[in-house]
Amino acid sequence: MAGSARTTPTLVDTVSSAITERIAGRQLMPGARLPSVRAFAESMGVSKSTVVEAYERLGAEGAIVARRGSGFYVAGKTRPLCLKEIGPQLDRAVDPLWITRQSMQSGPELLKPGSGWLPSSWMPEEAIRRALRHIARDADSNVICYDKPLGFPPLRSQIARRLADKGVEAEADQIVLTDSATQAVDLLCRFLLDPGDTVLVDDPCYFNYHALLRANRAKVVGVPFTPAGPDVAQLERLIVEHRPRFYLTNSALHNPTGATLAPVVAHRVLKLAEAHDMLIVEDDIFGDLEADPAPRLAGFDGLDRVISVGSFSKTLSASIRCGYIALRPDWVEGLIDLKLALSLGNGHLSATLMHRLITDGAYRRHLAEIREKLARAMGETARRLERCGLTIWTEPRGGLFLWARLPDGLDSADVARHALARDVVLAPGAAFSAETGGREFLRFNVAHCADPRTFSVLEDAMAAV
Amino acid sequence: MAGSARTTPTLVDTVSSAITERIAGRQLMPGARLPSVRAFAESMGVSKSTVVEAYERLGAEGAIVARRGSGFYVAGKTRPLCLKEIGPQLDRAVDPLWITRQSMQSGPELLKPGSGWLPSSWMPEEAIRRALRHIARDADSNVICYDKPLGFPPLRSQIARRLADKGVEAEADQIVLTDSATQAVDLLCRFLLDPGDTVLVDDPCYFNYHALLRANRAKVVGVPFTPAGPDVAQLERLIVEHRPRFYLTNSALHNPTGATLAPVVAHRVLKLAEAHDMLIVEDDIFGDLEADPAPRLAGFDGLDRVISVGSFSKTLSASIRCGYIALRPDWVEGLIDLKLALSLGNGHLSATLMHRLITDGAYRRHLAEIREKLARAMGETARRLERCGLTIWTEPRGGLFLWARLPDGLDSADVARHALARDVVLAPGAAFSAETGGREFLRFNVAHCADPRTFSVLEDAMAAV
Repeated sequence: MAGSARTTPTLVDTVSSAITERIAGRQLMPGARLPSVRAFAESMGVSKSTVVEAYERLGAEGAIVARRGSGFYVAGKTRPLCLKEIGPQLDRAVDPLWITRQSMQSGPELLKPGSGWLPSSWMPEEAIRRALRHIARDADSNVICYDKPLGFPPLRSQIARRLADKGVEAEADQIVLTDSATQAVDLLCRFLLDPGDTVLVDDPCYFNYHALLRANRAKVVGVPFTPAGPDVAQLERLIVEHRPRFYLTNSALHNPTGATLAPVVAHRVLKLAEAHDMLIVEDDIFGDLEADPAPRLAGFDGLDRVISVGSFSKTLSASIRCGYIALRPDWVEGLIDLKLALSLGNGHLSATLMHRLITDGAYRRHLAEIREKLARAMGETARRLERCGLTIWTEPRGGLFLWARLPDGLDSADVARHALARDVVLAPGAAFSAETGGREFLRFNVAHCADPRTFSVLEDAMAAV
Repeated sequence: MAGSARTTPTLVDTVSSAITERIAGRQLMPGARLPSVRAFAESMGVSKSTVVEAYERLGAEGAIVARRGSGFYVAGKTRPLCLKEIGPQLDRAVDPLWITRQSMQSGPELLKPGSGWLPSSWMPEEAIRRALRHIARDADSNVICYDKPLGFPPLRSQIARRLADKGVEAEADQIVLTDSATQAVDLLCRFLLDPGDTVLVDDPCYFNYHALLRANRAKVVGVPFTPAGPDVAQLERLIVEHRPRFYLTNSALHNPTGATLAPVVAHRVLKLAEAHDMLIVEDDIFGDLEADPAPRLAGFDGLDRVISVGSFSKTLSASIRCGYIALRPDWVEGLIDLKLALSLGNGHLSATLMHRLITDGAYRRHLAEIREKLARAMGETARRLERCGLTIWTEPRGGLFLWARLPDGLDSADVARHALARDVVLAPGAAFSAETGGREFLRFNVAHCADPRTFSVLEDAMAAV
């Protein structure tokens, strides 16, 4: 082979390149059968032995595969899905996948004003340990078996009661438990979307929505966001242009801006959804941190076109996984079939623990306490940021987040890189905004901003870029 | 409108029907814009007012939607995915979705020889309660925060050790925790498959694979199964014909047959996988019930083309969700990105509990005990079934399942219907076999066959059909 390659190098090269180009240009797709040696030799005007040699060379390189008795094929995709490659290529400092991992992995030596959750010390650890002991003792608790298809009935009743407090009327049988709000949104994607469907998100929005929707092969379109909710005129234009299957949003304590949906905007959004046959997935993950519940789309709409999602990860524990979906009654059966097919159901122990924590009063007391602490931290952090020269985009009614604009057109990714070098993890705006709009912003978690070093490092980083 | 409809009923009807047919025939897809009134009137040779009326009628019926200023559109799909409708239409008695729900919902009054798991009374409840108390007391246990991206490191080390006992060499960093084996297989589907890709499964196989793969929009092809593993000649033929992305199988204690893969078959399967660039997902969910581990594909292959999946749902608890994936090191990062994007990670509390149960010796003792009980129940159940006139397809080396053929060509779905009317839930073969091959078979869970009524009801049902 090597000898013959030396005598006719040019022809074999030409034939090999012709095939490689067709594969690269997707004229020959992975798995496609190559032309027979004879046919290809004729079409290229070369000898059959030249084609055989080219095929063998490509086979050795792994570009094509010989199958006994049936010819040569373009090598299949051995590589699996890579989320990083199907989205925009992002610098680490603004890569949502990396920010999520960093928040989960980093040790206590880091300051994390960019974190998406409360510090452990703010969480009701003693109450959780008490609930664990209670379940361990309670002979009636099920620590063995799968949960019921919809999920632990007493917890669903409690969630229905809590939703009612927010103006969302739902029977317990309209509530389906999941293992987290993220898993709930994912399950809804699989319930509602065909590959290539469009989903609207807020711009800016929670950064993981982009990765989650990309993994569901959805086309993601951002709706410009205002302190009162989505920009309704833009929303209508984008609905007409993209005919989205659903709009995914946080109505209460929006991530990352902390904004609250105004009732007049809510009404207009619902009218548009109805006129254009669009669904809405309302992720209420931070809702329990509100002191006085603002209106929910799911409440105005009566869970007709709106599906409500929530969990306890941000308020009780992210170690114990438990979330839920509230939706129209006629869709519950189909959703359960899908849930069981994909996971055999939610974790029963987690559901039991959450139920215990809600009903023994610990959750109510804990919420009252952290709301107060958050309100204090919010005011304090806003003042400190303003002193550093940042502008608060809107004053949140509660929750964890402040969305703040850097002065002088500074790029928040550059600032974040500098801060990270000094062990302060920031959350730069570009991670939250598919467009370029977020570039001058940072999201601050006020519960992680008590240490004055946060602000000195921020000021140094701003000066350094 | 009603008046004008009466004056030109035929023309409006004709125009309406023409549109309805185009929608039904998918010439007009959901969301497509209809022709303008003028253009359509000209093409149909009718007046514009006739078209307007037809459009309005279709609008009132919900088939099309008017959008202000931009014309008429085919109504979008309001209905979400329905697994029941995208698979074959099945009678309830053989519908996997229904069997799963029935097993989860039914109370203690039912006998469940068709169940897929052990009776609660066989599970190590006291050890689990002890582990709960231990975690509650242990100040170092994390009951608050998200797990690490790969999952609790000490549990991954333990799983690596357990895999090594089965001949599968894996570093702890090749192991990714999930919330169940089902969720693990689903995550791999999303990692490996494009919509429309083909997946091979055994025929018969665990019934939920069909629903899970359908929900992932895969094309599912069954490989005829023998007591030594898949029929290798048929496997090769199907690989050549369908070019599957992966083959999903249980090597040890196959569900539903209880068969064990023979080494010679394992070797041939791996050679085929390599020659045809196919991956293998080996679901080892019942593996811990083996006394002496049989060879695993993942062991022979060194986790190159084979990905191994497992969990503790069948041996410790299904209330505490915890599973895992072991795969080649260069794919771990991509899989973790996907895992975090879709769920924000596995449940840390569950992982901690599983780790505690494995390391305190409870799991080892429990396994030894249930293996012995299962072996006794297996022999006893086989004898009783043979006395009822059934034939055991293969004698399992362990585990829960016996795959038994009814005499005289009896249809197991009919037998199952009769038995269900007398509170005995059977698992008819058609649920496990996409083709018709399973129709004469039933899967028996020997741990649920202690009650003699199981067999008297079975005999009555066989006599009644």
